[in-house]
Amino acid sequence: MKPRDWQRYPYPFLYGQIDPSMLPIPGWRECSLQALSGSEVRGWAGDLIDGDDALLIEQIQTRLLARRGVFASADEILVTVGAQQALFLIATLLVGPATTVGVEDPGYPDARNIMAARTPSVVALPLDASGLALSPGLDACDYVLLTPSHQCPTNTTMPLGRREALLAWAQARDRVLIEDDYELEIGLEGRAQPALKSLDRSGRVVYVGSLSKTLAPGIRMGYIVAHRDLIREARAMRRLMLRHPPANNQRSAALFLAMGYHDALLRRLRQACAERGALVVAALERHLPDVAVSTAPGASSCWLRFPDGADTRALAVAAERAGVLIEPGDVFFAGDRPPRQYARLGFASIATDRIAAGIAALAGAFREVGMSSVRVP
Amino acid sequence: MKPRDWQRYPYPFLYGQIDPSMLPIPGWRECSLQALSGSEVRGWAGDLIDGDDALLIEQIQTRLLARRGVFASADEILVTVGAQQALFLIATLLVGPATTVGVEDPGYPDARNIMAARTPSVVALPLDASGLALSPGLDACDYVLLTPSHQCPTNTTMPLGRREALLAWAQARDRVLIEDDYELEIGLEGRAQPALKSLDRSGRVVYVGSLSKTLAPGIRMGYIVAHRDLIREARAMRRLMLRHPPANNQRSAALFLAMGYHDALLRRLRQACAERGALVVAALERHLPDVAVSTAPGASSCWLRFPDGADTRALAVAAERAGVLIEPGDVFFAGDRPPRQYARLGFASIATDRIAAGIAALAGAFREVGMSSVRVP
Repeated sequence: MKPRDWQRYPYPFLYGQIDPSMLPIPGWRECSLQALSGSEVRGWAGDLIDGDDALLIEQIQTRLLARRGVFASADEILVTVGAQQALFLIATLLVGPATTVGVEDPGYPDARNIMAARTPSVVALPLDASGLALSPGLDACDYVLLTPSHQCPTNTTMPLGRREALLAWAQARDRVLIEDDYELEIGLEGRAQPALKSLDRSGRVVYVGSLSKTLAPGIRMGYIVAHRDLIREARAMRRLMLRHPPANNQRSAALFLAMGYHDALLRRLRQACAERGALVVAALERHLPDVAVSTAPGASSCWLRFPDGADTRALAVAAERAGVLIEPGDVFFAGDRPPRQYARLGFASIATDRIAAGIAALAGAFREVGMSSVRVP
Repeated sequence: MKPRDWQRYPYPFLYGQIDPSMLPIPGWRECSLQALSGSEVRGWAGDLIDGDDALLIEQIQTRLLARRGVFASADEILVTVGAQQALFLIATLLVGPATTVGVEDPGYPDARNIMAARTPSVVALPLDASGLALSPGLDACDYVLLTPSHQCPTNTTMPLGRREALLAWAQARDRVLIEDDYELEIGLEGRAQPALKSLDRSGRVVYVGSLSKTLAPGIRMGYIVAHRDLIREARAMRRLMLRHPPANNQRSAALFLAMGYHDALLRRLRQACAERGALVVAALERHLPDVAVSTAPGASSCWLRFPDGADTRALAVAAERAGVLIEPGDVFFAGDRPPRQYARLGFASIATDRIAAGIAALAGAFREVGMSSVRVP
């Protein structure tokens, strides 16, 4: 992996697209207005230097982390400008040219890019049916970045046994795991696994959370939970980097959480994702029976494996002409010659009544792009 | 300068304190609400990846840069999370361990800290009556960071001749100047000097602007103007760092500028600063005649030089007990043994009718702290 890949890296992500009908506008409007009342403004208009909104920290503790089984004190939490800044801050503090970082392959491209901008030693680690595998490559890694809740992009939820095995490995080898719990809120269900961080007894899991999948990606709100020594350093570095995330948004988000709007939104999103996911899977089975589909309860996307020889780059172009957006899957792979037969299909933003027609159009695009070796219905 | 100074560095800045009566709350509320209307939300709720709000860019061009004599196309501008992120991004792209960076001494501490976190070679450059001096140390610097509009913290406005001389030096030696125009908006008057960037014909000035001094520091809104090649790299790095500044705030700020609220606010702030500055200077002359005062038209602070032997750290503690906040000036100096006789006094946030009593209280605190060698009235 070339360290300056990030500069040339195309970013065709469509995943951030949102369904306006799912946006919590009335609640956000109410909270934004309240944050603009005279008494609230005094709290946030000034420069917080390196501080965070105390109410937001409290709400992250009680409304977000507690559900994930994570109990953290205020000095173990730092608010960031989205999960992206969380990963960047962690990389800036922990990763240098001599550090080896393991990333999932396939995995989130910008996590790989962030690490590759800091060190030439980014190791692409293989997955298996339980998510990140206990592979021989692991031992070379000082830090390992993983998405155990919904592996990005395959949606695998890591079972408890693998989580414990990874923690035991980290403990035995004195390594640190970086848990990107980017979809925590939507994915949360009664039977959901608690976060890897909740099993961590030795402070060797650095946890990253985000409100992008619920509140709106454009608002850029994330957070880090880690040992207080690391948070202290991250806070000092964040001060240099940008001082603090915009404080008006911190207060609005705090109110949004405190008034229960976020809990209600979670329920709505969970229901929508479950309903839409089931429709997408059923439509794929009907229209594209040769495509292997991987999703999970509460996930907001499907990971699709088209038959050998398929080219999802070409398919994405044809599908877009038909009004359907898919993400070609090659960007998730670390190698120079990534496979072209995968794609990610986000469905959180697709209105329920448009799903069947959309998948039919995708199948039509697949026929149009053509692939003689494949039986297309 | 030790490269990791920033970790231990105390940050006693009080400058970011704001006067709630000067905050443009009604206008900001209206713009925030409009940004939350259905049609606007579609524009910003999604992930912009590495994009900026097009209306904000246009408003920066027409309402902010044009007044400073700077004409830039959209691909020469990048929005940042405050001027701090602008400086951090520039340092991340341009400064490595082998780079020498010149900073003003005294100067903005976090600019020095940002550079010192990237390279051991940060050169403290002396000032004279025209601001940054043409000193021998200049030639060692690959990049020079300066605040020509209102030198931070001395408030010196650099005359045209010095600006031209610095540009000629940069041109002859193939060096780059980084202009931090942090107080552009308040400082703007009929007779104000245009920005250094406006004189730049060879693309060797990187310009940093901010809305913190007008809109509110807590909102964290800044921007970089530079050659499009540098902006392209900065945009790619910003994507890794945090993707983009919160898009709801970008849209609200764009509307705030477009509706003329910012222009009106500028006039109000300019008037308040002129009025308050004159009162502060008069009260200082009366109550602390041995203190040398340096301010400038449109500035929002005074730089105070107390007599030799004074200790403004002790004074700040005593003054705070009397309800007056001053910034001890030693933090602005680069050396290990900074002088203790300087202080900065921000007055933008002090209500007009409290100024005379406040300065009298400051003089009382100075008497209380005591200094036998000084004649105190």
